[in-house]
Amino acid sequence: MANITRFFVFLSCFCFASRVGSASGNRNVLVIIGDDAGFEMQVYNNTVCKTPHLNSLASRSLTFTQAFTSVSSCSPSRSAILTGLPQHQNGMYGLHQGYHHFNSFDTVRSLPLLLNQSGIRTGIVGKKHVGPESVYPFEFAHTEENNHIMQVGRNITLIKLLVRKFLQQKDDRPFFLYIGFHDPHRCGHTNPQFGNFCEKFGNGEPGMGLIPDWTPVHYSPEEVVVPPFVQDTPAARSDLAAQYTTISRLDQGIGLILQELQAAGHDKDTLILYSSDNGIPFPNGRTNLYNSGMAEPLLLSSPLHTSRWGQTTDSFASLLDVVPTVLDWFGLEYPEYEIFGKNKLVKLTGKSLLPALKEEQSWNTVYASHDLHEVTMFYPMRIIRTGDYHLIQNLNFAMPFPIDQDFYLSPSFQDLLNRTRKGQPLHWFKTLKNYYYRPQWELYDLKSDPQETVNLADNSDYRDVLQELRSQLQAWQKVTYDPWICAPWGVLEDEGPYKDNPVCMSMDNGT
Amino acid sequence: MANITRFFVFLSCFCFASRVGSASGNRNVLVIIGDDAGFEMQVYNNTVCKTPHLNSLASRSLTFTQAFTSVSSCSPSRSAILTGLPQHQNGMYGLHQGYHHFNSFDTVRSLPLLLNQSGIRTGIVGKKHVGPESVYPFEFAHTEENNHIMQVGRNITLIKLLVRKFLQQKDDRPFFLYIGFHDPHRCGHTNPQFGNFCEKFGNGEPGMGLIPDWTPVHYSPEEVVVPPFVQDTPAARSDLAAQYTTISRLDQGIGLILQELQAAGHDKDTLILYSSDNGIPFPNGRTNLYNSGMAEPLLLSSPLHTSRWGQTTDSFASLLDVVPTVLDWFGLEYPEYEIFGKNKLVKLTGKSLLPALKEEQSWNTVYASHDLHEVTMFYPMRIIRTGDYHLIQNLNFAMPFPIDQDFYLSPSFQDLLNRTRKGQPLHWFKTLKNYYYRPQWELYDLKSDPQETVNLADNSDYRDVLQELRSQLQAWQKVTYDPWICAPWGVLEDEGPYKDNPVCMSMDNGT
Repeated sequence: MANITRFFVFLSCFCFASRVGSASGNRNVLVIIGDDAGFEMQVYNNTVCKTPHLNSLASRSLTFTQAFTSVSSCSPSRSAILTGLPQHQNGMYGLHQGYHHFNSFDTVRSLPLLLNQSGIRTGIVGKKHVGPESVYPFEFAHTEENNHIMQVGRNITLIKLLVRKFLQQKDDRPFFLYIGFHDPHRCGHTNPQFGNFCEKFGNGEPGMGLIPDWTPVHYSPEEVVVPPFVQDTPAARSDLAAQYTTISRLDQGIGLILQELQAAGHDKDTLILYSSDNGIPFPNGRTNLYNSGMAEPLLLSSPLHTSRWGQTTDSFASLLDVVPTVLDWFGLEYPEYEIFGKNKLVKLTGKSLLPALKEEQSWNTVYASHDLHEVTMFYPMRIIRTGDYHLIQNLNFAMPFPIDQDFYLSPSFQDLLNRTRKGQPLHWFKTLKNYYYRPQWELYDLKSDPQETVNLADNSDYRDVLQELRSQLQAWQKVTYDPWICAPWGVLEDEGPYKDNPVCMSMDNGT
Repeated sequence: MANITRFFVFLSCFCFASRVGSASGNRNVLVIIGDDAGFEMQVYNNTVCKTPHLNSLASRSLTFTQAFTSVSSCSPSRSAILTGLPQHQNGMYGLHQGYHHFNSFDTVRSLPLLLNQSGIRTGIVGKKHVGPESVYPFEFAHTEENNHIMQVGRNITLIKLLVRKFLQQKDDRPFFLYIGFHDPHRCGHTNPQFGNFCEKFGNGEPGMGLIPDWTPVHYSPEEVVVPPFVQDTPAARSDLAAQYTTISRLDQGIGLILQELQAAGHDKDTLILYSSDNGIPFPNGRTNLYNSGMAEPLLLSSPLHTSRWGQTTDSFASLLDVVPTVLDWFGLEYPEYEIFGKNKLVKLTGKSLLPALKEEQSWNTVYASHDLHEVTMFYPMRIIRTGDYHLIQNLNFAMPFPIDQDFYLSPSFQDLLNRTRKGQPLHWFKTLKNYYYRPQWELYDLKSDPQETVNLADNSDYRDVLQELRSQLQAWQKVTYDPWICAPWGVLEDEGPYKDNPVCMSMDNGT
């Protein structure tokens, strides 16, 4: 059986390669992922944080107003971007580095793996943060694995030169180039000498080094736009101002990359996608799957689809759509295969976004799931976001929502802690106590309650809505073979007699 | 720096190899690990379950009455047995197989790795259940990775032949042979057709196959000895009777192996260690770190130390002592090295058990830690057992203690569920409700309370004891670089400015 499967896969790859090669001229892909980047850009109506290069890209893009990550944590999100499978299905349940040590399953077929097999040249510059290598095998790779992440992720002059090197390689194959900026990730946790957002790294001041291509843009704390889910205090404003400066490095880096693409003559044949891995590293952002942690910027620019350039779309998109979109662009299909040889056939639940480049779509549902982030931070959540509704199941709800090492040290979180300790006003829409302790089910109607402050899960008027959403969410968990599908009150039986028909069995909760 | 380290390691290995080779004749090691095996043997005063071959081994062994696993879960325990590092330090936080997918860190130096480098031949037959391969590189390997686990783990005729093959290889090096029986593990979860404990597998009945070397021993439910932590009901008794039959296969398998050792002329130069990975798969057993899930059988037989043959010792032993014991036997030292290159120097916290073979020792403290078992079963626990005291910290205490897929389907657990549902007497020393919901701290005095039913953690008479034990436990967590050392109310900072001096920072619990 395994041999038969392998045989068909071989055939498929052969066909795919032919199809890519036979297209009229090459079609290439450039994916750019910001690190903890959010909506601090003019494209998304932030009038203060200047992002001329993102503006320029947006003028040749369709801009998604309703795009979402499938998990608000770095490695899990990147694994989902590159495999099209949610973290609970590809095995990257938490962070990849150090003692967190999560890895995708050996049998997962990622985008670089499939593209390599289909005659497409693959490259990565910057933050990779996923593994194992055999699952994510980029041919051209300059990442934290063979460089310092500060250099390949934040030194935009170096990034420019690496992109140039990739584009100038004499190779007739189409290419897929993935740029993982480390900007605008926080810095205080590992390299505080460069500022809270590494906003001083390479600015030319003594001891900061110099990035020749970067002209830092500075902001005053008074002028920044405080997102509604962050407290409006001097500490948080100052933190945001540092983030904005780092965003200027990201934006100028994107400008350099687009210039390299043009100089190499590939601006007319390359699909460009810009997004981020997860929410911004502020309260209610990263590691949360509230709208504030889940919504992402998404620009999709195709030189072959110009009719909607400069427009926005309210069609829902998920980062799980990246793989289907890239495969569609290359005319490739996703192979069906078993991850564990247990009749668990992998199928992508995402969709190609290319149709939206031609006309508005009615997409209005996405899903998300989170398990760990740091290995100690067990806080599984399962989410459906459909229309105006947002349903969250917190599986470990009786314990406090965990705080990560990086965010804990941030000025914004320290400010909340200090104000709480001193009994001072938080100027925030929550208290730390209700941030830590969450009910098992949360249901929000974003139309009337965009900040998600009124939980409707126990409101009898919404009983049918809740029931319907739970049922849709469970169907997604089923089709993605979610190991947590029975948690927290049940045990999943999916081996032996239950191999072909997994069931949830009740623990009876001891009552 | 890395190169210098490598240079020294090379030198060390060279020395070690010389020392092993220069001993007068070879010294070998045979480690036998039962799977979920407990005290169902005459050696430990069970007068019903017949284990003549374990009896025979015990007559040439020192028998430990106070031996403990460092974690009551299969892969984590085996990783600790083979690395000398607790699961939270070697990275095997839960089960290795399938979607659980835990692995030790790539830089961990296990017993087979160190022994291979020191000129010792290494072999494994049966259950391995740890990874990655590069960390656990046995030269001779017949495991679930290249065979069916039922064959290499339960077919004692095949096991005998594989042991013979290993022992007959023409190779002058000393050897380390590790036998991982799959008996007496449960079967209902994966292969129920062979009975709840696979007690019918190979018994010669139609469809059961035949293991030529096995003479099954049968027991009636009425005669079995019900452990005090298991309910005394017909269902549990019948379950235990099946377990006993499977133990007869384990016991006879051990007899065959010892016979092979003798036939190969190695009974006079081989250290033999028999133990198990974790508690028995009954209520309060496996996945628990109560005494009932933590205490293990341990026989240590040295042909060079005959003075205490047939004796018992009350000195405390931990499965973390296996590595130091084997290294001591071979005259090797454990190298010090960094796992993450962050000044986190690995040192073993276990001890060689060889001195106990000569005279009684005053060892009276062991530690244990548990994190996940199945990936969905997050329930970290940290334990110190010293003298008569047993301190348990449950880090995820506000959620129910999780039930694993295998145990859930067992007749014994189903019996508890059904009786709870029907309101019938459980004939058990707990209710399911108090089994599921545990306080953060549990302190027991086993002298007056061997079943651990009276929690002294909140008893003011024990305030000083509690404080002292907590402090000892935390010291062990520190020296083993426990990522959970600050959980559940704090955040561990151990990077950047805190790299050399990790600290716990309070979340303030939102109050």
